[in-house]
Amino acid sequence: MNPADSDSNCVKRLKEIFYPRSVAVLGVTDSVQRVGYNMLESLLHGGFRGRVYPVHPRLEEVMGRKVYRSLAEIPDRVDLVMMALNERASLEALRDCAGKGVKGAVCVAGGYRETGEDGAALEEELRREARRYGVALIGPNTLGFINNEIDLYAFFHPMKLPKGGASFICQSGGVGLSIVYQAAGAGLGINKWVGVGNRSTFEFTDYLAFLGEDRTTTAIGIFVEGTENARQMVRMAGSINKPVVVYKVGRSDAVSYAALTHTGSMAGSYRVYRDIFSQFGLHVVESTSEMVACMRALAMAPPPPGNRVGIFTHTAGPSIVAADLLLERGCVLPDFTEKTMEEVRRITGPSPPFVLKNPLDVAGFGFHAENFGPLLEIVAGDPNVDLIFPIYCHHKNWRFPGPEIVRAREKTGKTFVALYLCQESLCGEDRRLLAGHGIPLFTAPEEAARAAAALVDRGEKLRGRKEI
Amino acid sequence: MNPADSDSNCVKRLKEIFYPRSVAVLGVTDSVQRVGYNMLESLLHGGFRGRVYPVHPRLEEVMGRKVYRSLAEIPDRVDLVMMALNERASLEALRDCAGKGVKGAVCVAGGYRETGEDGAALEEELRREARRYGVALIGPNTLGFINNEIDLYAFFHPMKLPKGGASFICQSGGVGLSIVYQAAGAGLGINKWVGVGNRSTFEFTDYLAFLGEDRTTTAIGIFVEGTENARQMVRMAGSINKPVVVYKVGRSDAVSYAALTHTGSMAGSYRVYRDIFSQFGLHVVESTSEMVACMRALAMAPPPPGNRVGIFTHTAGPSIVAADLLLERGCVLPDFTEKTMEEVRRITGPSPPFVLKNPLDVAGFGFHAENFGPLLEIVAGDPNVDLIFPIYCHHKNWRFPGPEIVRAREKTGKTFVALYLCQESLCGEDRRLLAGHGIPLFTAPEEAARAAAALVDRGEKLRGRKEI
Repeated sequence: MNPADSDSNCVKRLKEIFYPRSVAVLGVTDSVQRVGYNMLESLLHGGFRGRVYPVHPRLEEVMGRKVYRSLAEIPDRVDLVMMALNERASLEALRDCAGKGVKGAVCVAGGYRETGEDGAALEEELRREARRYGVALIGPNTLGFINNEIDLYAFFHPMKLPKGGASFICQSGGVGLSIVYQAAGAGLGINKWVGVGNRSTFEFTDYLAFLGEDRTTTAIGIFVEGTENARQMVRMAGSINKPVVVYKVGRSDAVSYAALTHTGSMAGSYRVYRDIFSQFGLHVVESTSEMVACMRALAMAPPPPGNRVGIFTHTAGPSIVAADLLLERGCVLPDFTEKTMEEVRRITGPSPPFVLKNPLDVAGFGFHAENFGPLLEIVAGDPNVDLIFPIYCHHKNWRFPGPEIVRAREKTGKTFVALYLCQESLCGEDRRLLAGHGIPLFTAPEEAARAAAALVDRGEKLRGRKEI
Repeated sequence: MNPADSDSNCVKRLKEIFYPRSVAVLGVTDSVQRVGYNMLESLLHGGFRGRVYPVHPRLEEVMGRKVYRSLAEIPDRVDLVMMALNERASLEALRDCAGKGVKGAVCVAGGYRETGEDGAALEEELRREARRYGVALIGPNTLGFINNEIDLYAFFHPMKLPKGGASFICQSGGVGLSIVYQAAGAGLGINKWVGVGNRSTFEFTDYLAFLGEDRTTTAIGIFVEGTENARQMVRMAGSINKPVVVYKVGRSDAVSYAALTHTGSMAGSYRVYRDIFSQFGLHVVESTSEMVACMRALAMAPPPPGNRVGIFTHTAGPSIVAADLLLERGCVLPDFTEKTMEEVRRITGPSPPFVLKNPLDVAGFGFHAENFGPLLEIVAGDPNVDLIFPIYCHHKNWRFPGPEIVRAREKTGKTFVALYLCQESLCGEDRRLLAGHGIPLFTAPEEAARAAAALVDRGEKLRGRKEI
């Protein structure tokens, strides 16, 4: 079997698993404290519209639903099995899948190769049984997965996330949850999410190939602790015609050891990973918040045609913070044209009390949206500017320049990344308004700058695209 | 005049300015669009209980308050003058301060040395006039200052911040606002805040000396673009018996230029600054969010007696992310004692399906607060642990282990930094509960780790304290 076959088989299988018509929960219980209960609630709370079958050998009814004694008793095919079972019972349950047409199983149990030699032997058995009965595994040692497109939360953390184009592949359920919680808070819509666990059946490359083909996924984020085959993973990621953002932990030996006992993989050298990632055009981030910021920008805004950033502000400091990060990440801050400066002077008077440079800090001339708008339009329209970065500071008595930013975007067609200095809770309305026009809005200067740099990076990758 | 005299005079003068009994607003207007209006509203909205005198040559009344024609007309001493005037009018207004006992003036106007030679000459004149009339300047080219202890917002951004021990010295109003907005969102109480502007009268050292003596300030944050005398600043910061956190921008030449035209100071080499900061025991951060995270921890939690961190979790990935950052910052993750492991086994059974190491990931044994608590207590009580780092992941049907974390803190007396993986909006109650027991709570793994490292750093500084 050559790798290409493997990939296309895996993608086909992942499609079946991510789009099931029927799901059985093995080991459902009526105790809200238990995983089995929460797997069922997760499906119902999420709003999955396929058929759901709770299974338990002795229960009659849970959450008002008939409980089946066994998989065999279900009078239907079962596409996906969710196992709320321990590591031994999960293994045994695979046999029961025979004859039910089961495509895949979510195996949340830990106790496999991440715990040592005995666990590794058990996992090998699990893998063998899965193959024998034609069942592909998500996990083991995973939280599960989400296909938000069809409201499927194959999970035991009942939740409901905003919809959108961002999909995530996470080698840690906890970090993956941290990312989706932060994403939900920032209004980033989630498409698909998977905790890869011990990767008994599917590798990073398989999930990447699947999401690469997935029609509704527009950007892919990966959290990696370690993998034996980083080069294959990044080659796949680099060949996908969608932005891929990667967050890798494990800079130290101690951390490598922790990762080894988490998902049974060596963490490897951080530097080696970074170099490989960059070589293949992946965008590397260094925190969960940076992951969310970059994914928000990449899922929403067009990559600019070049790396020249214009910063427009009425408060200098945040523009300097942003400039610092942008310059570090390969962006340039071009001079504005003489025409731009003339037009600015036409509004501010011939000798405004500020220096006409980039970043352009117009101070009091930018306090009010009505003045902010026309000046922003001039700067955004400058032919030297590929991406424009407007900064506005919240004021109790003055409104945000949302409509003006949208207007400037429509008039100039440039890529915009907006920064409002304010509490998150205060800018929800403008965030939605701007998002509707492909403009991500941030409230911390560093996140805005990193997101803008990610868009520039993406643009460069698209222009310099090479066969890999 | 030797520097020591200068410092003690400056501190005395800053005390008078930060605790005025009467404040006049020059250039008040009745237009909500204007700075003068918002300076007055800022004082009233903030709830300042001293006397407030609006001044304008032609207005009778603003916001229901009598407006005085001039400073001279006010039948009272005036301790602080806030100038909603342009750069020339601010200069002229200093003369009017004569005979009114004015201690200080907030000068928000720009157009001084940050704009070039003419502006520098004007600023020199401003400085001379201020000295002649015995008025000390906050600014020029500043947003103003806050003394939240007495509800004084000498400012033109009306706001109301939570109270607490964190004070900030910011060489940028915008970045300073970004910090207080993020701080307010995270529940960090603000004590004092100042935008230093062009530092015509007061230098960083003066503000530091003032806050160092200030009874209600427990931690100091500084945002620096650049200063001609970094060594003097850090020597002062290092001599203060309070934690000092510093955020410095300006890694590149282009940014140095932007800073030059912002507050008229050279940004200088970032590396040189960093080295000096560390040498004097300041805690260096690299973003506004890290500033807020570290200030939250330092203002609330006791510094641990050593650098040994125990991580306790039921989800591995976030503990690996945290470990990565902690190890990079000089912390160690010690092995737990055999006694600790025995006690853990007494709860989980003799061979739990996880590895007994640090970070300790107890998986399903930590899902419920009732189990999380006793296990956390065992690990926190380990004699090898100086700082304990519990991690819990939000679940719709399971409660947060807030009371259990508090109990473990009370039983062990250790320093705690808690991480909940959840949306910010979901953990407010536990955040307040934990804060009441000196435990900062974070929702992003990287921020929690950086905050814990700041506490460790602070502890090391206290133990290794040298005369400087």
